Amino acid sequence: MTLDSHTLLDGLFASRAMREVFCDRGRVQGMLDFEAALARAEAELGLIPAAAATRIALYCRAECFQLELIAEATVRAGNPAIPLIAALSALVAGQDEQAARFVHFGATSQDAMDTGLVLQLRAALGLFDADLAHLGGALEELVRKFRHTLLIGRTWLQPALPITFGLKAAGWLSAIGRSRERLREARHRVLVIQFGGAAGTLASLGQRGIDVGGILARELKLGVPGLAWHSQRDRVVEVATTLGLLVGSLGKIARDISLLMQWEVAEVFEPRAPGRGGSSTLPHKHNPVGAAAILAAATRIPGLVATLLHAMPQEHERGLGGWHAEWESLPEVCLLASGALSHALEVIEQLSLDPQRMRANLASTRGVLLGEAVTLALSPLLGRALAHSLVERACCSAIEEGRSLFDVLAAQQEVTHHLSLAELDRLCDASVYLGLAEEMCERALSEYARVARGSEG
Amino acid sequence: MTLDSHTLLDGLFASRAMREVFCDRGRVQGMLDFEAALARAEAELGLIPAAAATRIALYCRAECFQLELIAEATVRAGNPAIPLIAALSALVAGQDEQAARFVHFGATSQDAMDTGLVLQLRAALGLFDADLAHLGGALEELVRKFRHTLLIGRTWLQPALPITFGLKAAGWLSAIGRSRERLREARHRVLVIQFGGAAGTLASLGQRGIDVGGILARELKLGVPGLAWHSQRDRVVEVATTLGLLVGSLGKIARDISLLMQWEVAEVFEPRAPGRGGSSTLPHKHNPVGAAAILAAATRIPGLVATLLHAMPQEHERGLGGWHAEWESLPEVCLLASGALSHALEVIEQLSLDPQRMRANLASTRGVLLGEAVTLALSPLLGRALAHSLVERACCSAIEEGRSLFDVLAAQQEVTHHLSLAELDRLCDASVYLGLAEEMCERALSEYARVARGSEG
Amino acid sequence: MTLDSHTLLDGLFASRAMREVFCDRGRVQGMLDFEAALARAEAELGLIPAAAATRIALYCRAECFQLELIAEATVRAGNPAIPLIAALSALVAGQDEQAARFVHFGATSQDAMDTGLVLQLRAALGLFDADLAHLGGALEELVRKFRHTLLIGRTWLQPALPITFGLKAAGWLSAIGRSRERLREARHRVLVIQFGGAAGTLASLGQRGIDVGGILARELKLGVPGLAWHSQRDRVVEVATTLGLLVGSLGKIARDISLLMQWEVAEVFEPRAPGRGGSSTLPHKHNPVGAAAILAAATRIPGLVATLLHAMPQEHERGLGGWHAEWESLPEVCLLASGALSHALEVIEQLSLDPQRMRANLASTRGVLLGEAVTLALSPLLGRALAHSLVERACCSAIEEGRSLFDVLAAQQEVTHHLSLAELDRLCDASVYLGLAEEMCERALSEYARVARGSEG
Amino acid sequence: MTLDSHTLLDGLFASRAMREVFCDRGRVQGMLDFEAALARAEAELGLIPAAAATRIALYCRAECFQLELIAEATVRAGNPAIPLIAALSALVAGQDEQAARFVHFGATSQDAMDTGLVLQLRAALGLFDADLAHLGGALEELVRKFRHTLLIGRTWLQPALPITFGLKAAGWLSAIGRSRERLREARHRVLVIQFGGAAGTLASLGQRGIDVGGILARELKLGVPGLAWHSQRDRVVEVATTLGLLVGSLGKIARDISLLMQWEVAEVFEPRAPGRGGSSTLPHKHNPVGAAAILAAATRIPGLVATLLHAMPQEHERGLGGWHAEWESLPEVCLLASGALSHALEVIEQLSLDPQRMRANLASTRGVLLGEAVTLALSPLLGRALAHSLVERACCSAIEEGRSLFDVLAAQQEVTHHLSLAELDRLCDASVYLGLAEEMCERALSEYARVARGSEG
Repeated sequence: MTLDSHTLLDGLFASRAMREVFCDRGRVQGMLDFEAALARAEAELGLIPAAAATRIALYCRAECFQLELIAEATVRAGNPAIPLIAALSALVAGQDEQAARFVHFGATSQDAMDTGLVLQLRAALGLFDADLAHLGGALEELVRKFRHTLLIGRTWLQPALPITFGLKAAGWLSAIGRSRERLREARHRVLVIQFGGAAGTLASLGQRGIDVGGILARELKLGVPGLAWHSQRDRVVEVATTLGLLVGSLGKIARDISLLMQWEVAEVFEPRAPGRGGSSTLPHKHNPVGAAAILAAATRIPGLVATLLHAMPQEHERGLGGWHAEWESLPEVCLLASGALSHALEVIEQLSLDPQRMRANLASTRGVLLGEAVTLALSPLLGRALAHSLVERACCSAIEEGRSLFDVLAAQQEVTHHLSLAELDRLCDASVYLGLAEEMCERALSEYARVARGSEG
Repeated sequence: MTLDSHTLLDGLFASRAMREVFCDRGRVQGMLDFEAALARAEAELGLIPAAAATRIALYCRAECFQLELIAEATVRAGNPAIPLIAALSALVAGQDEQAARFVHFGATSQDAMDTGLVLQLRAALGLFDADLAHLGGALEELVRKFRHTLLIGRTWLQPALPITFGLKAAGWLSAIGRSRERLREARHRVLVIQFGGAAGTLASLGQRGIDVGGILARELKLGVPGLAWHSQRDRVVEVATTLGLLVGSLGKIARDISLLMQWEVAEVFEPRAPGRGGSSTLPHKHNPVGAAAILAAATRIPGLVATLLHAMPQEHERGLGGWHAEWESLPEVCLLASGALSHALEVIEQLSLDPQRMRANLASTRGVLLGEAVTLALSPLLGRALAHSLVERACCSAIEEGRSLFDVLAAQQEVTHHLSLAELDRLCDASVYLGLAEEMCERALSEYARVARGSEG
Repeated sequence: MTLDSHTLLDGLFASRAMREVFCDRGRVQGMLDFEAALARAEAELGLIPAAAATRIALYCRAECFQLELIAEATVRAGNPAIPLIAALSALVAGQDEQAARFVHFGATSQDAMDTGLVLQLRAALGLFDADLAHLGGALEELVRKFRHTLLIGRTWLQPALPITFGLKAAGWLSAIGRSRERLREARHRVLVIQFGGAAGTLASLGQRGIDVGGILARELKLGVPGLAWHSQRDRVVEVATTLGLLVGSLGKIARDISLLMQWEVAEVFEPRAPGRGGSSTLPHKHNPVGAAAILAAATRIPGLVATLLHAMPQEHERGLGGWHAEWESLPEVCLLASGALSHALEVIEQLSLDPQRMRANLASTRGVLLGEAVTLALSPLLGRALAHSLVERACCSAIEEGRSLFDVLAAQQEVTHHLSLAELDRLCDASVYLGLAEEMCERALSEYARVARGSEG
Repeated sequence: MTLDSHTLLDGLFASRAMREVFCDRGRVQGMLDFEAALARAEAELGLIPAAAATRIALYCRAECFQLELIAEATVRAGNPAIPLIAALSALVAGQDEQAARFVHFGATSQDAMDTGLVLQLRAALGLFDADLAHLGGALEELVRKFRHTLLIGRTWLQPALPITFGLKAAGWLSAIGRSRERLREARHRVLVIQFGGAAGTLASLGQRGIDVGGILARELKLGVPGLAWHSQRDRVVEVATTLGLLVGSLGKIARDISLLMQWEVAEVFEPRAPGRGGSSTLPHKHNPVGAAAILAAATRIPGLVATLLHAMPQEHERGLGGWHAEWESLPEVCLLASGALSHALEVIEQLSLDPQRMRANLASTRGVLLGEAVTLALSPLLGRALAHSLVERACCSAIEEGRSLFDVLAAQQEVTHHLSLAELDRLCDASVYLGLAEEMCERALSEYARVARGSEG
């Protein structure tokens, strides 16, 4: 078993644990777990000798196989299950010719491959859930800790209104909550055995197929679907679409952090560590390595999701080409999502903020962000249209002349006639014009807590 | 209101009802419904005069607006809500200058656009549910009616084993059931208002924002999210991913039908009607028009889903470019899905089968599909390896020499020594070797019935 | 002819001229141009009466047809050419029953649709070439004008080294040059007639098909392909992939501008105009509307390109579903590209720069960007490793303590022992450390000039 | 150097030679080739000592490095060049501290990575060209050999008109020709060095950068671009779009073959070989393994192309996330294309045809495919409308009653009044109604010959 699918870039783009799940060994072990459970189920029902099942199960360990040989035969066979089953039969036959006859009894190669895949997906979903729980926890922390930390709220990449960092993090948190919910909802559709025989009828097992399937599922702790889903791929493709949504939300976090980390903004920073985000030539560099990896995943996964959706209209009882297109694409989605998630976890857990710089940046807008507040206060007094155009002109002056909105307005009789300087000052205070930022943090926290309880329940 | 988004090809690719939902008029009306409900909510809370709300609501009908003018101003404004709100204010001001001040009070243009979109999506989900209920019913009918109708089960585009047409349809049905389930599960995440003001804090409404949001949602019969989701797009993108899975499953139905309808197969036919599927020059043509339209949708939607996923990492409180990329892409997904669904409904409801030809095609395989059955019967008698190679050779002879598997085997002493001709004949009878085809039809039907009840509940 | 495909958002996402090319009228006129030219060609060869050709050509104008009726019949026919040809025949028959027999003589509906598409694509390529020439010119201007304008060069969204704005624009320009080259190279593959009859053999014209094709192509000023390309779609899909590359390059320009236009950077600005990029509530807003539209196009086109590539493996002599998937996708690519291009043109032509702010931002880095320059100077004196670590520490101090790199280094004997303060000062001067920025501007300009000449030649 | 990127499925989906190019070793060697050539260039210009260059070049072999360690450090560094260069420096320093100072002198990590990639792409383009030349040759053979072999031409998956197999192969050939042309045209844009230093100015080399770049390019036998293309990615993404078109055309071949190989059609077969396309349980199976692998590639590549296009709008002088998204996606496109191409080559070179079955299938249409021919003959005699409806009815009768079109028509006085039975018989002879099939084969062959000569020239 010397084939090894780890590469130079795997570490950057996928978590170690997920690579264990989706390496060749994992793929092969998934198929072997199916074969072992099948043999046990058939032995339990007396369809094959108990001794044969024992023998078969004995060899159902990936380390018993030379993966290069399987890989080579796969080119001709068109899928890896056929040569794997042949190799398993040969191993068993070496000990017990009789037992070898019962390897893979009644099943088709896709039964082994798909059930093996489902076992890998179950492990993956477990890892995602654990990492998401951690990430959610870290985000809850951010929301709580920075619910009063002022910074510029930005829209269209331009300053809009003051917000709090807690509110920003609450948005991130809420999306993570919904992703957890979706992954949980998908489980009962995904985590089922594939068992239909060559064309989905289980004909070779006669009427015993249902019983075998039931025990097989029990052995593997998977659900029993109504019928085989050899060419109905929505069950597994849903994992990809759901992870696509998750990684889109992680990409949003990374986008925000990389923008906030710009030199000219400098409000938030990825963790620093020796060898992290440096440059081969520039000594001052502190690159957002985590954000880069997450954004790379958010750029790559949509194309893979599209591939899997495109592959869905598979022909007849088992398809040609479409099924094959899934074999590397679906694992790739899981791997990339795992990498994005672990980078997000590291970045969020160790995120450092500069609240002073946030305030300074806010101050650099010289109050123009509060034009809305002033307009609202003046509207009942001057009429809305007049108020709006007066404030708009004042904002322009403030920006062009480098003065504060307060100063510009305080110099206008139309304004001071209606508002005292103290009132005007208060209207130009960002920390006052935060609306429901705090309440929304609360609501996001309790909404998430509900989801988190549901996930664990 | 003379802009009209129907085009030459709309009829082929989208249902009429869905085009009504997603035409320009629908988009504008969605935003206006938001503005009317907002005004009513604010009036109910005394934030704006009741008379103003009444006036505003009066003009919140799409037919009050010249869409060309809105379209023109959209180019500069960067979104259609800004000029629409300006036009609404102007209309109201024409009657009541005071009231005009309260148009869109406290909201941002994205609040109107997103809530309007959600209203369109709710209408769309309603249409999908109704059409899926019909399609499910028609498929249940097929499963029941043809559960004993034999045909070739095909894998890798090659004959594999006999199955029944009911089993094939049961596979189609089960996927439709899962799609209904997913669409149902998504509802509570999708069907919520968008209401956050310029940067998500609702600052301009002070502490009254929560109450306004509550009434706004009640008025529009939508849910209230924990916080604004201006740059958290998973809620609406989930509609696209879910429809992507649905259309993948519809594409699978279309693929099967178009293959079964080939001249050389001729087992199943799309409905015939005057002008349907003819050719400009070939008088004998009967083209699978429905399948073509469905497969076109299944080819187009994955790219749109990828676009929407790609657009998710939006910047800060409201994004740049990503949000804009959604405006036509998400409606397009709904439109294409509606077209695929109505074609599927028409094709399935009027599908005609030729069970005689199915039997004839099965017969043309001269029993080689039953090699597995014979191998299983011979294995305990001859050993599996010998049985397999004996039958494999017999299959080759049968194919090459144009004889039946029965004839080839009946001429071999090795076989007749162990099996009587009657036993052999029975083994070579496709109608006997159907395994659990019938049970699986039952299971698919009851599984679907559960889903269908849930959908209506 | 009342169908009209312009919508609320068309103006934002597509140029007016391109919408004229790809509206329903344009599609229909393209097919009619084919029919008219076909009739003329066949009359010239004496295959049909000259009078019939004249009659037919007379009605080959889109305004003669009620597009709603064509649209309606398209649903059943499965393509718009069949009902259009039927309607054309009916119109001709109204005047001359005999002539009507010769409408569409020898051709298939796909011949009309594909040749019509090619005519639309030719018009599109003409528009692209003109707009690209303008954009190229505007970019040349930027390169020339700002070749000495210093600003921060940024990598990984972090400051790296000083560059010039001319160099940045030179990068934009060079990509535009390559796109022009590619579009030019594709022309001879794309701009050919489609003419093969029902299955590509032109059987209904006997041996005259080659002559008819030759004249048809001459009439339409298109090339003659070796054989029909009904199910070989690379010719037209290449237009999409090439535009995909172009819009990727435009997206890069938009990304840069939107980032440079951030409040905290403020180095470059999209044009201001009344109603442009404002907000419904925030008086100070100046949103990068052009960048938003370009980035939206750069987000949407890749999915459409993928759709077209996915649709390529079409069945046999003319495909099912794949071809249909092209009908709206390929025009959409052209429309979005046209919109991106005209926004880019507007933004680039009217771009305003703030060179003072660029210098100020550069100054805000307090010389740490020049760490590389100092390291290089110290390396031969101290050894590279020591020089690197000394400068790295100095950069950290400078950043943390808010001092300039010069001040930090000037205080270190290790440095001043080897370098005079004047030397050190020069090393810390950004305007000195620009390498080949100017030469590269020159090279980009002359490279582009070569391409531009080629395009016009 | 124990990392190894070959996996269980690599053999099925990628050619061995291409895996050699794009394995980790290949990636590392590409970067090292850059470093060695850079050192030599700088030594030639006297910028670094000649002895240092020699030392450095000595270690620029992938086998000198422990790839696991590089992989590990990549996670923190954010790209593999940084730790590779550090390791190279350490190795050199082990021998000669002085020389180590000159490793990677003046370059940035992206210079090494991108130039290394270009070297890999050059090798890839060489392999593609060789394989395409073979495939083209095999297709020319098919065209020549089967230019008179009749079969059903099929459109919309329905029989249309008789064609020849040569014509079908000519369509395949012509697309391959265009792909060769495109790959050739892209070369001068792709095959250039990347050399710009940290921000594209080559500042650390002062004015010597141009000379260094010139020699570097000469050493590597690559072109010199006008300026660095660190964040202008169209050069390399064009390789992906061009391969996307190629694999779309290969997918079309595979689609056709898999459809023609259906049991009920059985006109064409993939090669048979022991272990090829068998089943784990069905002894009669002969699965189209080559077609499956090609179609899988044609399903997967569009998503990867979309990813690369999406990644193009990279930020400023060197991007964040977008560049990272390329690192595995572009090699994956080359690998999948290589696999598709070698499967296509194998399948086409060993394709077996059953011309007798082709004739039999044609005969099974009982002449209805020749309805067009009869209609054309009757039109001048009966008027076109009457002729068309008469033949349409006759086709329906023929299909429904299982009679031949000849028999149906021969029984109608309206027909026999105008046509003799001999004339009618000739009209119903498929081999007569082939139009220009043969001429088009000739034209395709000479067109391709021109391209092939150009490729070699």
